[in-house]
Amino acid sequence: MLLKAVAAKDASRMLAKINTEQKNNMLAAMSDALEKNMKEILFHNEIDIEAAKETGITPSLIDRLVLTEQRIKNITENINNIILLQDPVGTEIEKNTPSINIDVKKIRVPLGVIAMIYEARPNVTVDAAVLCLKAGNAIILKGGSEAINSNKILAKIIYGSGIKAGMPLGGIQFIDTTDKKAVQELLRLDDFIDLLIPRGSEELVKYVKTHSLIPVLSHGKGLCHTYIDKDADFEMALKIAINAKCQRPSVCNAMETLLVHKDAAYKVLPRLCKLFDDNGVEVRGCNVSKSIASSIKAAAEEDWSTEYHDLIVSVKTVNSLEEAINHINKYGSTHSEAIVTNNEKAADKFINEVDAAAVFVNASTRLHDGSILGLGCEIGISTQKLHARGSMGLKELTTTKYVVKGNGTIRD
Amino acid sequence: MLLKAVAAKDASRMLAKINTEQKNNMLAAMSDALEKNMKEILFHNEIDIEAAKETGITPSLIDRLVLTEQRIKNITENINNIILLQDPVGTEIEKNTPSINIDVKKIRVPLGVIAMIYEARPNVTVDAAVLCLKAGNAIILKGGSEAINSNKILAKIIYGSGIKAGMPLGGIQFIDTTDKKAVQELLRLDDFIDLLIPRGSEELVKYVKTHSLIPVLSHGKGLCHTYIDKDADFEMALKIAINAKCQRPSVCNAMETLLVHKDAAYKVLPRLCKLFDDNGVEVRGCNVSKSIASSIKAAAEEDWSTEYHDLIVSVKTVNSLEEAINHINKYGSTHSEAIVTNNEKAADKFINEVDAAAVFVNASTRLHDGSILGLGCEIGISTQKLHARGSMGLKELTTTKYVVKGNGTIRD
Repeated sequence: MLLKAVAAKDASRMLAKINTEQKNNMLAAMSDALEKNMKEILFHNEIDIEAAKETGITPSLIDRLVLTEQRIKNITENINNIILLQDPVGTEIEKNTPSINIDVKKIRVPLGVIAMIYEARPNVTVDAAVLCLKAGNAIILKGGSEAINSNKILAKIIYGSGIKAGMPLGGIQFIDTTDKKAVQELLRLDDFIDLLIPRGSEELVKYVKTHSLIPVLSHGKGLCHTYIDKDADFEMALKIAINAKCQRPSVCNAMETLLVHKDAAYKVLPRLCKLFDDNGVEVRGCNVSKSIASSIKAAAEEDWSTEYHDLIVSVKTVNSLEEAINHINKYGSTHSEAIVTNNEKAADKFINEVDAAAVFVNASTRLHDGSILGLGCEIGISTQKLHARGSMGLKELTTTKYVVKGNGTIRD
Repeated sequence: MLLKAVAAKDASRMLAKINTEQKNNMLAAMSDALEKNMKEILFHNEIDIEAAKETGITPSLIDRLVLTEQRIKNITENINNIILLQDPVGTEIEKNTPSINIDVKKIRVPLGVIAMIYEARPNVTVDAAVLCLKAGNAIILKGGSEAINSNKILAKIIYGSGIKAGMPLGGIQFIDTTDKKAVQELLRLDDFIDLLIPRGSEELVKYVKTHSLIPVLSHGKGLCHTYIDKDADFEMALKIAINAKCQRPSVCNAMETLLVHKDAAYKVLPRLCKLFDDNGVEVRGCNVSKSIASSIKAAAEEDWSTEYHDLIVSVKTVNSLEEAINHINKYGSTHSEAIVTNNEKAADKFINEVDAAAVFVNASTRLHDGSILGLGCEIGISTQKLHARGSMGLKELTTTKYVVKGNGTIRD
């Protein structure tokens, strides 16, 4: 493990010097090689799937594990999109006026070595590697044991093709053991690894955050709310609420709790409950909500702090915008929060006072996604406040450097 | 402690809503109150100084502790400068093009609650509080026991005057105990505190980093190099080297090791050693350097990794620019590194390949300071790679928020 980290550090110094065209050539070679070796990838993926089925794994986990020709094509298309993105390395990010006659620039530079610890989905092996490489970093990959064969072949293909296209040896390091000790060891290599990104279950992220000596940037959990204001366009509110809950309930930016202003509740809740019912959504609500729509079941206190990730929603009728904001700041996970209103003052208050990585006005929280917001790609959505908050793209995989040029300039 | 943290969190929500003018009014009130209560401040400071003298503390530590009328005026001038700085809160920091028809902004918002743990210098009580407030944050201050009386009176004055000028209750929290358990307790309050800034000895910073559940941003240690290239202007090189070592040797951006290209060593080292001698600097060098200037003492391996913070310098003659860069990347603390050269290619290579928060070409590392680089102020210099690297100003005391506006926009 130590040797891999040392090799990655060496490679990172070389990757930091490589220009955009050279990096794009490596990515193109990887994309080509994945296309050409589709059959081999599918063959190895099949081994993982068979093994998973034998251990009686859930269908949804198997779905995350499965690769198909189409899914591999999606992976290569993603690489091709990343090739088109602007290289963040070297871009100037601040214009300050120094107090003496020197030339000061603050530019983006690669972080160095990024380690990624992830579960199940084998596409992460490729997605993470190409994003980190495009930003000039070396990467260490530690995937889940369920996908070990798929990950091994994917890593082998991108490593081999990358090297042929000029990638430094050690630029991509794959940890091909399923031994849990490997993760423990990895977390202590803060002399060689600059950033650790865990991606997977809440337990995995928590374990990594607690034990890592390396700075951690993690995809945050999402307990997202939609608040329907008294001044909302109610048709719009219905559309947004249904989208936020039902379009893909298993993900972090799906709505878990709906808040509705008491003056809107009578108009909205009965119709919304009918729509939820049509979509197979179980609705759990406060007493007031229940009195308005009889199909609503009673919510318990823990419902307000539960991420269902399922076709269940909790509903609360609130007396005011303030109450909605307080509820969100108390129970929310600072991920994505939405208000539906035509009242500009209410929208501004919500924007300013809700503590979250992203705030949506008259839009679905499901839109919180790097490619939709214009980053072109995404390595996750952070709910941390330092370094990166919200969708993380290429820029978040870099750090900065002050470059100061003088002419024999000294300090008096 | 918990109550103070809860009160700070509440205050932070209010501070986030307050506009620039209101914040500046608070700062102006604090500046006025400090000026008016100078005598009282000096009286309490005297108590600390007497106590320090009794415990036989070093003169340099007493110097850090002492307040004078002039030093208090410096503190109030600093506040007045911060009033003039642009408020980072609300500024838009990224322009991306979303993939659908929505309006996306990424704006700066306050972090929330910042805790500062510091030693000796009582001016930090005021400097830290006003910087955090200007960026819309509440602050919790935990100063060193040596300065407890000075800190108490300073905190009392800025708190009282801040409140009168509209600061929310709890906006500044001062921990008025010298009990070490208070720090332990503080480090665990990650539910209420968003950022912890330790400022003081390496031991303090290390303790905080190891035990804190709260994200830490620390002022990094500095083992800074100056490399004199074969293509340097040698007069300039002498001037820069002397400045980097002698102008204020006790600070983090002072030079600790001088690297000199072998083709320059014969021309530079004898004269430089004479100048170092004139300035009372002890020079320890490698064998080659010693053979060129006989006044140089032998350096041991540990000299290359020692921050003297004193009138001592280590000198190494290197065979190439590459060797200089490798030496810096091996022994440096990624703080501030300088090259003296008229060769643009050499400068570019140094800029690109040296891993540091700031790289200087034909300038002294002593210039690494927020006010010189144009930030207007500084809460420290970070050698971390995440969130903030190098001089940290107001921007680094903020986080971001995506604000997305749609028109009933949903995800397909």
